Amino acid sequence: MAEQPLFNRVAFIGIGLIGSSMARVMRRDKLAGSIVACARRQETLDACLKLGIADEVTSDYALAVKNADLVVIASPISTNKAIAKAIAPHLKAGAIITDVGSVKQAVIAAIAPHLPANVHFVPAHPLAGTEYSGPEAGFAELFEGRWCILTPVPGGDAAAVAKVTEFWRKAGSKIETMQADHHDKVLAITSHLPHLIAFTIVGTADDLAEDLKQEVIQYSATGFRDFTRIAASDPVMWRDIFMNNRDATLEVLQRFTEDLTALQRAIRRGDGESLEKLFARTRAIRRSVIDAKQA
Amino acid sequence: MAEQPLFNRVAFIGIGLIGSSMARVMRRDKLAGSIVACARRQETLDACLKLGIADEVTSDYALAVKNADLVVIASPISTNKAIAKAIAPHLKAGAIITDVGSVKQAVIAAIAPHLPANVHFVPAHPLAGTEYSGPEAGFAELFEGRWCILTPVPGGDAAAVAKVTEFWRKAGSKIETMQADHHDKVLAITSHLPHLIAFTIVGTADDLAEDLKQEVIQYSATGFRDFTRIAASDPVMWRDIFMNNRDATLEVLQRFTEDLTALQRAIRRGDGESLEKLFARTRAIRRSVIDAKQA
Repeated sequence: MAEQPLFNRVAFIGIGLIGSSMARVMRRDKLAGSIVACARRQETLDACLKLGIADEVTSDYALAVKNADLVVIASPISTNKAIAKAIAPHLKAGAIITDVGSVKQAVIAAIAPHLPANVHFVPAHPLAGTEYSGPEAGFAELFEGRWCILTPVPGGDAAAVAKVTEFWRKAGSKIETMQADHHDKVLAITSHLPHLIAFTIVGTADDLAEDLKQEVIQYSATGFRDFTRIAASDPVMWRDIFMNNRDATLEVLQRFTEDLTALQRAIRRGDGESLEKLFARTRAIRRSVIDAKQA
Repeated sequence: MAEQPLFNRVAFIGIGLIGSSMARVMRRDKLAGSIVACARRQETLDACLKLGIADEVTSDYALAVKNADLVVIASPISTNKAIAKAIAPHLKAGAIITDVGSVKQAVIAAIAPHLPANVHFVPAHPLAGTEYSGPEAGFAELFEGRWCILTPVPGGDAAAVAKVTEFWRKAGSKIETMQADHHDKVLAITSHLPHLIAFTIVGTADDLAEDLKQEVIQYSATGFRDFTRIAASDPVMWRDIFMNNRDATLEVLQRFTEDLTALQRAIRRGDGESLEKLFARTRAIRRSVIDAKQA
């Protein structure tokens, strides 16, 4: 007798890089009896069928979530509130709702209040991605060895958390649990600020006169190139992250700006000693990252 | 009869990542009759002998450059003036002096005035490196497919430029020639500003409370990690770069700061449209970098 899949029916609301990678894991490990993909754009739905990562596709939220025992909201954060409202009346009793948003407080505020009492919401954030977007960009190995942070809601269902955890384990992720506000603070430093800075510096270069810009591109391997990769991430997804983790981002940005101003002053004054001291400290941090096997 | 090597005797004044990689190229392609390495620290000299990248080692400048027909100054920029003064009286007539400094105007000002009239100075900057330092970190393939920018001095010797060019071609580099001041401006954008920002953000993280810092390291794969690699570059080398390309660095830093302030305001005001527009532009720049085969 075949083993029972982890979920009988899984619905993806939004299916880009992350959602399609999750669907591929489910296919590979036979974790879903059937997969339905829901998206607004017909080309996304067509791609899902062509890629074989969904059994059914629809642009109708009600149809998508009907009888689903797992609903994955994998759509830009700004859409989450409307999605929650639209799917709420059609959810099966006992269904698990999860998401993949890069910000947790705002996502919980957008989704949780609209869900009926007889379903279970398990907010999650897989710390994985590439600079590519769309269902074609996904791959089953995306989450291997990467962290997935769960930020369970107060009074949440332990069995539902266990099932979502089991999925991420199958995907190869390391699982961590933390409070939503703490998640947002940590990610503001590790992810949101670095992206904001990369977007800025690449934008600064884009504003240069055309001939100088061509040279910057030609000689980008000297440092600039690494920023362009980060700054190539999905524009809508990142707009939503900054709009929805505003306070934490602005706070770390403030610290960064102060530190940058101090460095600027050191350069202007010819204070090489301060520079060298800082650069020796930052080199040590790299060793910590390597020791933590994150490099 | 064996082919004549490109240089009979080559002296390296300073031999870290770059110098030792050049020596390895010379060994591999038999470009030097003999190689002498000159450094202040005995452990560096011992390493050169152990690695087999030098035939002789010495801490004496006069001995090092005696009879050398190529002298490579591959030492932090702040040492270049003293080196030029020390080697000048001992240089062979017709010797070629080259360097590998990341800043060209300041290096030319530090070296050129002290050299005798009967030698040829060919300033060069190989756009290559890793976050590691020292002679052990070098490898012959470091320069393959990378740019080497020559910034010949007015009235420089064409034959000397041709010989230095020939070396870099053998190393696998693509060669470009430009004015020293233009070089410094382009590199301020492509390399010096990105490094300054990476040093800053990693320093900002280092100032966090210890437990939060540990989490930043743990979750660094979400963007921060890329900055730590850049910010692990050699502290003394980078101190000297900022001290010696001050005006160009401060100018691009000013533009960057203005752009960052504008983004900060957009986030504070909830102006998602401006953010999305910028992020779409920066994504396009990434495509240009890929098209230029720099990614």
